[in-house]
Amino acid sequence: MANQKPLILVTNDDGITAPGIRKLIKLMQELGDVIVIAPDSPQSGMGHAITVNDTIYCDPVQEFQDEGHKEYSCSGTPADCVKIAVQEIMHRKPDICVSGINHGSNSSINVIYSGTMSAAVEAGVEGIPAIGFSLLDYSIDADFSHCDTYVKKIVREVLKNGLPKGVVLNVNIPKLKASEIRGIKVGRQANAQWVEDFDKRTNPMGRDYYWLSGEFVNEDKGEDTDEWALAQGYVSVVPVQFDLTAHHFIDKLNDWKFNS
Amino acid sequence: MANQKPLILVTNDDGITAPGIRKLIKLMQELGDVIVIAPDSPQSGMGHAITVNDTIYCDPVQEFQDEGHKEYSCSGTPADCVKIAVQEIMHRKPDICVSGINHGSNSSINVIYSGTMSAAVEAGVEGIPAIGFSLLDYSIDADFSHCDTYVKKIVREVLKNGLPKGVVLNVNIPKLKASEIRGIKVGRQANAQWVEDFDKRTNPMGRDYYWLSGEFVNEDKGEDTDEWALAQGYVSVVPVQFDLTAHHFIDKLNDWKFNS
Repeated sequence: MANQKPLILVTNDDGITAPGIRKLIKLMQELGDVIVIAPDSPQSGMGHAITVNDTIYCDPVQEFQDEGHKEYSCSGTPADCVKIAVQEIMHRKPDICVSGINHGSNSSINVIYSGTMSAAVEAGVEGIPAIGFSLLDYSIDADFSHCDTYVKKIVREVLKNGLPKGVVLNVNIPKLKASEIRGIKVGRQANAQWVEDFDKRTNPMGRDYYWLSGEFVNEDKGEDTDEWALAQGYVSVVPVQFDLTAHHFIDKLNDWKFNS
Repeated sequence: MANQKPLILVTNDDGITAPGIRKLIKLMQELGDVIVIAPDSPQSGMGHAITVNDTIYCDPVQEFQDEGHKEYSCSGTPADCVKIAVQEIMHRKPDICVSGINHGSNSSINVIYSGTMSAAVEAGVEGIPAIGFSLLDYSIDADFSHCDTYVKKIVREVLKNGLPKGVVLNVNIPKLKASEIRGIKVGRQANAQWVEDFDKRTNPMGRDYYWLSGEFVNEDKGEDTDEWALAQGYVSVVPVQFDLTAHHFIDKLNDWKFNS
């Protein structure tokens, strides 16, 4: 990179006006040249959705253009935003892609449902070092002030060291005061899950419908997990891969009588 | 299971009327008691999306009730279908969940975008042995006749052997005549990707929009990959996990100067 400032692609899944991405943009402006391509509306829970049977709009956002960087509002999913940024909007491949800061946790099994992480994974697929950031606070009024140090530190380390092909980072930040955070802890995705409890209701026309709700249950007490780190007051960093192959089970599967 | 017939949950991402799921339902009726909860409309490319900010409808489908099993049409995503099936519709946990048969490939990197596989993964998260089936033919008129033997064989093996916690199967079937299929091959997800080539157009009001398109590029020539197996005329079986942790990179990350 020599003396050139790094080119930083910023996106998220809560939408371009969410306080979390506004904070992330400000922090990234201290570290490099920023370009923002983010969804025009909230996309939480979108997983790694892409838009295959519909049109995608991606328009410059006038109100933010005077901040010294360009921003685009996109009708697609977070993964769409990254694809379109790299292919259509940006003149060179970004040095890093950061997604977030998400309003709410993407630790443990949440990673598979996460639009925030799908943007980071999509960037990783395209060969761009990428990080998803999430704060353990779903509130629109969440206080992101304690995130500054950790977000910048982790981005600087990735810019310095790079990331191996096929790996992106999932960073979760506890809802604590700056003075209460004990540091950064690298770990693995805890083996936890949501136990659903649908809220069944009847609409005014007499038709039943549901709201998805549920309880997060973590029986994985490992001290090497993201959940443990967060509960102890650490910022959690989990390296995430998108080779989903369960390599450990291939030998066993080959013993099955598939071809007899 | 003793003498009880296995209880089989069938879902997909192409929607409940797609020829691929109609075929899968017929095959599963030969193997057990079937219940169908599938999207009311196509959900291709939905990844592991869930519906968090909207209502979900899930209604019995009258037209299929006389086939000896119950079917429900759901307004949610494939992952929603599995959640609602297990929590609200089914009286006991299914012995297996099968998703598909998808009209189009879910091999290689397609697994992360796949609604078909997201349903299987969701079942896996809930502790249910699960398989996603896909045919390498996007056509609505695709010929599924050569799938019968292989689908039933793989389902029978999973019912007999079970699957380890955290693992589901991703099965892709070549577009070939029955006589041309060489058997079943277990392998890993090929390290391939889509190189996007957005089709930019202007709408009648003068606003630019995009269609996502692209070319599938596979430079992974490994003979242990799903792409290799499919190209050679084999049905490909890849074990898929949802612990996304890149365990091999944890030690290295711990060497970074995060806390200095």
